[in-house]
Amino acid sequence: MSDTLPDDTATLGQVARIAGVSPSTVSRYLNGSARVSDARRQAVEAAIAQLNYRPNMVARSLASGRTSTVGVLTQDIASPFFNEALRGVEDALTEARYAPLFVSGHWDSSEEAERLALLSARRVDGVVMMHGHIRDEDIAPVAKRLPIVMVGRATTTLDLPSITIDNRLGAYKATRHLIELGHVDIAFIAGPADHHDALQRLLGYQDALREAGIEYREALVARADFEEATGMLAIQQLIESRQPFTAVFAANDQSAYGARLALYRRGIRVPEDISLVGFDDLPHSSYCVPPLTTVRQPAYEVGLQAGQAVVKLIEGEDFSLPPLAVELVIRESTLPRRR
Amino acid sequence: MSDTLPDDTATLGQVARIAGVSPSTVSRYLNGSARVSDARRQAVEAAIAQLNYRPNMVARSLASGRTSTVGVLTQDIASPFFNEALRGVEDALTEARYAPLFVSGHWDSSEEAERLALLSARRVDGVVMMHGHIRDEDIAPVAKRLPIVMVGRATTTLDLPSITIDNRLGAYKATRHLIELGHVDIAFIAGPADHHDALQRLLGYQDALREAGIEYREALVARADFEEATGMLAIQQLIESRQPFTAVFAANDQSAYGARLALYRRGIRVPEDISLVGFDDLPHSSYCVPPLTTVRQPAYEVGLQAGQAVVKLIEGEDFSLPPLAVELVIRESTLPRRR
Repeated sequence: MSDTLPDDTATLGQVARIAGVSPSTVSRYLNGSARVSDARRQAVEAAIAQLNYRPNMVARSLASGRTSTVGVLTQDIASPFFNEALRGVEDALTEARYAPLFVSGHWDSSEEAERLALLSARRVDGVVMMHGHIRDEDIAPVAKRLPIVMVGRATTTLDLPSITIDNRLGAYKATRHLIELGHVDIAFIAGPADHHDALQRLLGYQDALREAGIEYREALVARADFEEATGMLAIQQLIESRQPFTAVFAANDQSAYGARLALYRRGIRVPEDISLVGFDDLPHSSYCVPPLTTVRQPAYEVGLQAGQAVVKLIEGEDFSLPPLAVELVIRESTLPRRR
Repeated sequence: MSDTLPDDTATLGQVARIAGVSPSTVSRYLNGSARVSDARRQAVEAAIAQLNYRPNMVARSLASGRTSTVGVLTQDIASPFFNEALRGVEDALTEARYAPLFVSGHWDSSEEAERLALLSARRVDGVVMMHGHIRDEDIAPVAKRLPIVMVGRATTTLDLPSITIDNRLGAYKATRHLIELGHVDIAFIAGPADHHDALQRLLGYQDALREAGIEYREALVARADFEEATGMLAIQQLIESRQPFTAVFAANDQSAYGARLALYRRGIRVPEDISLVGFDDLPHSSYCVPPLTTVRQPAYEVGLQAGQAVVKLIEGEDFSLPPLAVELVIRESTLPRRR
């Protein structure tokens, strides 16, 4: 196969003979398409070194038309939320013998479009797009050539499969929990105004208030951007508004961590003085002080489903999935309202 | 170039003509080797869609002998430490117009060897290896063909460039800080026994004790594995040993978080009753309660240097760097010993 191409002087068959294994073992090893025993791997690597063979996967992929890679466009390789989800994607792809190629769009629509084109140019077999702001018209030409699975956002003009969670129901459950504990003055730390998940969580908060006959008040809503520092500022804003509150629901765990620290600095105790709920259930939320009551967003499961979905589409199968369930995890940051 | 290859019916030149740009603009766009304006990008993508052109980077890479990709072998895509470092690698490579291809070895020497071979087979131009247990003999054949930069570990039988930090000096500084606050009974939560960084940090702890004339006592050392849950168990073990202590130095921030929670559950206050110091300065350590005094390991800088180093080696330049400096960051988890 690859021996007719310019810079392969040795062939895969020669490697196999010297290693004392079948050519298909060499091929499977080089593809990463199956586990090969330690002994065989060493024999193959030794033969490769002896022949100075350049395993030409790239050339072979021209023949098969597949590269067994899937592009994963993420937004922030350093975010704890994305990392849980990426681990899920990685596990699903590894299980199906595909290798992920991660790139980061950094929440910039132009950069996302460039990175998507780069993935397409590198001949990935499919793409998982995690959140982001890329415009539908930039997705469309790539979507004609490749299966694309969206995570955490939907497209309005394109009909692409999407893995979503029920953000609105999750936020309803969090707020409902506080109401059941007797809280009435419940502040909300919102997420970015243009973020789909953030808007759904605001709606869920409003749903629970409405159901309980509690008036929705703008003065109890502070805006943050899903990061700790703005969670701290949100508490400052809420306190300065002089509207009393006994509970805070933060639209994600990272802003809840910031809120917690801002309350600590003012000598306000959690949960004795203020009950606090987050959203996401990041790995750290089990270990913060106090451990955080939060809505478990199955980030790993979301990634796993996205990885499995793109593999199905690459292999010509159908795929559809309802929004994934979320559940409230009650830990130690919430208490009944003191009378 | 690519028009002689099997499945490219349209050529790059045709795309350029229809888009009204030069072929080199199309090429630069497809390579991701330079930013292209939004308007040009859209024109190129429209032309690609019209011609149903498959941008054949793979074929073009056969001609140039380069793929402009760098393989990054990491251990855990979901770990906060690795993510800071990966962001540094990503930034350095993007700056130099290389695309990272991340794969995970999960601290398993066989899996690492397989993933390294996979990267090599995919024709990356170089590799960054982050920590891991892969044996030198599995690295050797790949190192003959490609530049490899090691992060956080050295090779004993191979002479590969390595980005390291001064773990021992960092641990000395952390322990010295506690001694200067008047602490004498300083417990140490150690890392995994076979982990290079963990051993160096134990030595730094011992250095500071020795310098101050404080006896080193095994009973004040508990073993953890750099994760929160074992940090909690370490506190339990230290308390059960009935050796009094007024300060704890944890060999990394994650085990410090676990220690903090275990102390909280027992009603022991940090810093009023026990001073606590970590190592790494993970992003969360500024936001935990109380914000953690720790040794700032420049994880981002480590990644950035590793990315820059591999690019230099790919481009035929030399590279060498002394261990990167670490600094103590004093926050709110340490106080003078109460008399």
